[in-house]
Amino acid sequence: MGAEIASQPKVLAALLENCGQISAAAKRISAAAPRFVLIAARGTSDHAALYAKYLVETELQLPAGLASPSSFTLFGAQPNLMDVLFLAVSQSGQSPDLVESMQAARRCGALTVAITNNSDSALARAAEISVDIQAGAEHAVAATKTYTAELLALYLLVVGKPSDTIGERLVRAATQTLALNDAGPVHQATLELRYTDRIVLTGRGYSYPTAREGALKLMETCYLAAQAFSAADLLHGPMAMVDSSVPVAALTGTGHAAPTMVPVIDRLRSVGAQVLTVGPGGQLPVACEDLPEQLLPIVEIMPLQLLAMQLAVARGGNPDTPRGLSKITETR
Amino acid sequence: MGAEIASQPKVLAALLENCGQISAAAKRISAAAPRFVLIAARGTSDHAALYAKYLVETELQLPAGLASPSSFTLFGAQPNLMDVLFLAVSQSGQSPDLVESMQAARRCGALTVAITNNSDSALARAAEISVDIQAGAEHAVAATKTYTAELLALYLLVVGKPSDTIGERLVRAATQTLALNDAGPVHQATLELRYTDRIVLTGRGYSYPTAREGALKLMETCYLAAQAFSAADLLHGPMAMVDSSVPVAALTGTGHAAPTMVPVIDRLRSVGAQVLTVGPGGQLPVACEDLPEQLLPIVEIMPLQLLAMQLAVARGGNPDTPRGLSKITETR
Repeated sequence: MGAEIASQPKVLAALLENCGQISAAAKRISAAAPRFVLIAARGTSDHAALYAKYLVETELQLPAGLASPSSFTLFGAQPNLMDVLFLAVSQSGQSPDLVESMQAARRCGALTVAITNNSDSALARAAEISVDIQAGAEHAVAATKTYTAELLALYLLVVGKPSDTIGERLVRAATQTLALNDAGPVHQATLELRYTDRIVLTGRGYSYPTAREGALKLMETCYLAAQAFSAADLLHGPMAMVDSSVPVAALTGTGHAAPTMVPVIDRLRSVGAQVLTVGPGGQLPVACEDLPEQLLPIVEIMPLQLLAMQLAVARGGNPDTPRGLSKITETR
Repeated sequence: MGAEIASQPKVLAALLENCGQISAAAKRISAAAPRFVLIAARGTSDHAALYAKYLVETELQLPAGLASPSSFTLFGAQPNLMDVLFLAVSQSGQSPDLVESMQAARRCGALTVAITNNSDSALARAAEISVDIQAGAEHAVAATKTYTAELLALYLLVVGKPSDTIGERLVRAATQTLALNDAGPVHQATLELRYTDRIVLTGRGYSYPTAREGALKLMETCYLAAQAFSAADLLHGPMAMVDSSVPVAALTGTGHAAPTMVPVIDRLRSVGAQVLTVGPGGQLPVACEDLPEQLLPIVEIMPLQLLAMQLAVARGGNPDTPRGLSKITETR
């Protein structure tokens, strides 16, 4: 897991270098002029799907939704999907429910695109257009480099290739964020969180997928009851359960979301919660100066990946092979 | 909270009796022939929105998605929403981000419908069509009767008025489920769960919104780290954190979802988890014989409402006024 986390700057740089396939896919999508976008995924990839939803809504200005595979697989829905772009995101490309949903969506008239780390997978073969995230084999059960590669592939697909300057900034931000956190902040956070059984993560806008993915890493590797909420949803009920016994990791964000996090963090502190800030200048720092906020999630997750790994080790676990999981999960 | 829980059969019966306004709204929607449905909500109402998403996908055979209010309110998205039905669900009808999203959706060309318990609210006024769930004033902070009334209103709007026989079955199932659980099962579950700090809830298809709403009730009133997963998503990672120290409430469901829950419950038991079954014949029983599975969620949540209330009292809390919350939450 550590080697895969450390490899992320290289994986991102290689994908930026070699994004001709994605640009070609983007052209085909653009030519089809879809009016609605459905995105299907499970687990870690579901958080990449949530990221893509924000990108589609704010950059393409199209309505988008996350698909419920069970509507296709359990209930046999056959909706009219003319003018619909159906994206499925999966590291392995092998979960039967995603493959079946993809096949159903294609039969129903959608333009289908698979984003996977295995272009020979059943999901990639079932789609009209296949996008390979080119992250190389991932061995740790907890996905790290395939998550950030999925995010970048989705950015390239939806927004397009960034300028060389922005691309270089992204790779540098990833390198610096890993170095900054490895040097001490993650160790300190591990000491502070070693004995907790629960944690809340919160963020807004582009940082909300990061909160969800950070929580999943902590569930998978540390077995924590890690709960993620958008900062707005947190105030609609879950806030009641937060007190001085519940640590909170707050993604401070950049751009549009950042100002809305300030009063939420104040309120969390006012009920006695220990708030661990994750972001530029935070206790878990994120080096993202001059990076467009749409690219922030690719870097922002990295301190939480390192935290999940180091905390798992501190608690006596093995983050490479969490109990009860295998690398490819097959659900129907 | 207890009085509001107990009033649900009456609230449901009254709404079935008096659903002319909803039928008229359904006719207007049908005439507009939308091709895509977006549903916006927060908190408890977000679980009613998730229920509506399944209904739309499987009964109307239309693609649907849950809207991210922040795309409108923080990022100023102005998507093309021609042919889009935009539903917003809110008990109070007063959260500024929902009102603003509704106004933006209407400007962008969507047919807008508000489902609220206050037809004089800002949200109801901002929508082209307003549906009143007629649940009467709700005083407890944790929503109960407004949730089940929202579910029934959405059923009436999307599927239409059920036959008198089915309507009577629904009211009887609600009455029986409350009586069955009050008589002992909830007391026993309260004894067993009194000292836990965490719980996992899981269900699939129509039972997934119930898992989410049950978790929110337990967070709001008992301050538990209550986590809800669709049974498929549970296997994609979170399963690792479940062991003999983590109780799991499993919604056994009816219809299409029920057979898929059996192997999941077996797997949970195989890792030592105490599984509390909620459903027909379960430890927390649900009386839903002969009820279409689309109506199950209206009854299935009731044992979990009672559990949240009784467990809160057992732990020294006051379920009517949880700490840190107010009845109307305003987020932007």
